[in-house]
Amino acid sequence: MKKRYIQFDNPPKIISASSVVGRKENEGIFHGKYDIVDETDSFSQDTFEKSESEMQRLAVKKALEKADLTDGDIDALFAGDLTNQCVSSNYGLLNYDIPFFGLYGACSTAAEGIMLSSLMVGYGIFEKAIAVTSSHNCSAERQFRYPLEYGGQHTPTSQWTVTGSGAFVISKNGNGPSVVGCMPGKTIDRGITDINNMGAAMAPSAIDTLSCFFKETDTRPKDYDLIVTGDLGYEGHRIVKELMYENGYDMGTQYKDCGLMIYDRKKQDMHSGGSGCGCSAVVFAAHIYEELCNGKLGNVLFLGTGALMSPTSVQQGLSIPGIAHLIHIKGCDK
Amino acid sequence: MKKRYIQFDNPPKIISASSVVGRKENEGIFHGKYDIVDETDSFSQDTFEKSESEMQRLAVKKALEKADLTDGDIDALFAGDLTNQCVSSNYGLLNYDIPFFGLYGACSTAAEGIMLSSLMVGYGIFEKAIAVTSSHNCSAERQFRYPLEYGGQHTPTSQWTVTGSGAFVISKNGNGPSVVGCMPGKTIDRGITDINNMGAAMAPSAIDTLSCFFKETDTRPKDYDLIVTGDLGYEGHRIVKELMYENGYDMGTQYKDCGLMIYDRKKQDMHSGGSGCGCSAVVFAAHIYEELCNGKLGNVLFLGTGALMSPTSVQQGLSIPGIAHLIHIKGCDK
Repeated sequence: MKKRYIQFDNPPKIISASSVVGRKENEGIFHGKYDIVDETDSFSQDTFEKSESEMQRLAVKKALEKADLTDGDIDALFAGDLTNQCVSSNYGLLNYDIPFFGLYGACSTAAEGIMLSSLMVGYGIFEKAIAVTSSHNCSAERQFRYPLEYGGQHTPTSQWTVTGSGAFVISKNGNGPSVVGCMPGKTIDRGITDINNMGAAMAPSAIDTLSCFFKETDTRPKDYDLIVTGDLGYEGHRIVKELMYENGYDMGTQYKDCGLMIYDRKKQDMHSGGSGCGCSAVVFAAHIYEELCNGKLGNVLFLGTGALMSPTSVQQGLSIPGIAHLIHIKGCDK
Repeated sequence: MKKRYIQFDNPPKIISASSVVGRKENEGIFHGKYDIVDETDSFSQDTFEKSESEMQRLAVKKALEKADLTDGDIDALFAGDLTNQCVSSNYGLLNYDIPFFGLYGACSTAAEGIMLSSLMVGYGIFEKAIAVTSSHNCSAERQFRYPLEYGGQHTPTSQWTVTGSGAFVISKNGNGPSVVGCMPGKTIDRGITDINNMGAAMAPSAIDTLSCFFKETDTRPKDYDLIVTGDLGYEGHRIVKELMYENGYDMGTQYKDCGLMIYDRKKQDMHSGGSGCGCSAVVFAAHIYEELCNGKLGNVLFLGTGALMSPTSVQQGLSIPGIAHLIHIKGCDK
């Protein structure tokens, strides 16, 4: 049987990470830790879609600045988002004179981009690549749910699409956490049709990837300082814990979810937590990345989770497939 | 200055190619050369979107059969399409137990997928990968233009979205044409806002990639047996010829466009030609691939061209960026 886990002989480094967010995100747990915040969520643009594009532009600009690089130093951009035809990336990154690979992995896109960038850099195809992704609550709401003006009620299992963009510079050389391996996800559909319960739709793919990873690497959850899924929320996080336990893996308290980490549940009513392409990207960039750099975190599994439906497929009654891409990262030495 | 052209030390092989099309495509120039044809365009499904998914499933099945492989032999799928959130790929490929990378490159997706598969295989990350893409005229029409029942008139520069899916097995070993190099495209926007003139929107990116390729490789158009763009149509093909000539490159008669090759202009009124993710994929699979295998074609440049707008971005008055990914392929020895 073939192995899905790809281990790097020469692990590429994440030499910089940047985060751009809106008001609610900055009012959450990681207040003050984001690189760029616009309290108006508009980023000086006149449509929600343009605001999201602008967030990607700013995230890449900031990631380049932090790494002391310009776009001429970068071999490729791996970018995607949730909007139809991924226009946030297409328009947002027009300014950069860098070869462009468009991705669609729903909310797993941050991990998909970091994975492809790492593979390209780790195997010597490119020297430096950038992975970038975004979501904007307002562009997502009107596309996937209702016009904002309608003021539709959210159900308890629904999640709040994060207004955020994260960018990561992956390099052959330099300082930063190392991507030591990765495992691409498989599309899995367990029949969930409730568009307000993405956590349940995505959990089976996270379980598939995690189980396969632990088996292939002969490790256990306790071997990691942090195992973090992208945006399963309360519902999906609970399902993963329960079913992994039934599979013989106690996920322990080090298993977290970016969707649960980002907002302040005591002060902010975000139902089942955060979601969207931007959720795992900004939590990783603003928080996890820092702890990997300063030695607080050593051995981390980062799983991007995505729900692969469209508004049309849901209206047509199809169930929602999920996918979970895993990145295995090691922190900098203390 | 960094080079964009990536040349393989160990060129991967395209060991099989499959094509699945509808009625109008089979009535075109390559009548009888497609692997699977459904004259009803429905592929036994009850929605256009499901028909498109089914086409991708069939294309992968046929490509595997032709290579005498099963899904267990394949390390990764690189897949995408034009539908919102790429659901044709997400749903169509659920049956296959293969790690999945979702792509969005508009009509350039076939080339983007072949490029990423080739890079992954050529640099030893994977042994075998499949690139697959599709478009369906009916799912595209109602998403990008008007409901079919409305019977909207097309303008002369508009193109006909191909109902087709093509899949390609890229392998380290085996027989077939070699991918000897590739050049990823950059997103380029020259201000075209007419959604019925995709050719003009995509032509600048094709010109950028071609000019850069000829410069970096120090070659001329006459050094190639065939240079073929994906779906620029009459308008875009003419623009590329004219502007490349002004840049000092006579593209010659060996410069063709899949959108011009697929339909029979004498019998079929397809305005400016074919378009869509499926266009270049099925022309490559059903025709070019065969000529590369039987030695009729030796040295070929295949450019996937994509228009990176969405219906929303066009309604909001934004111009249409384009992208063109180039694959350099050498045929089998006679």
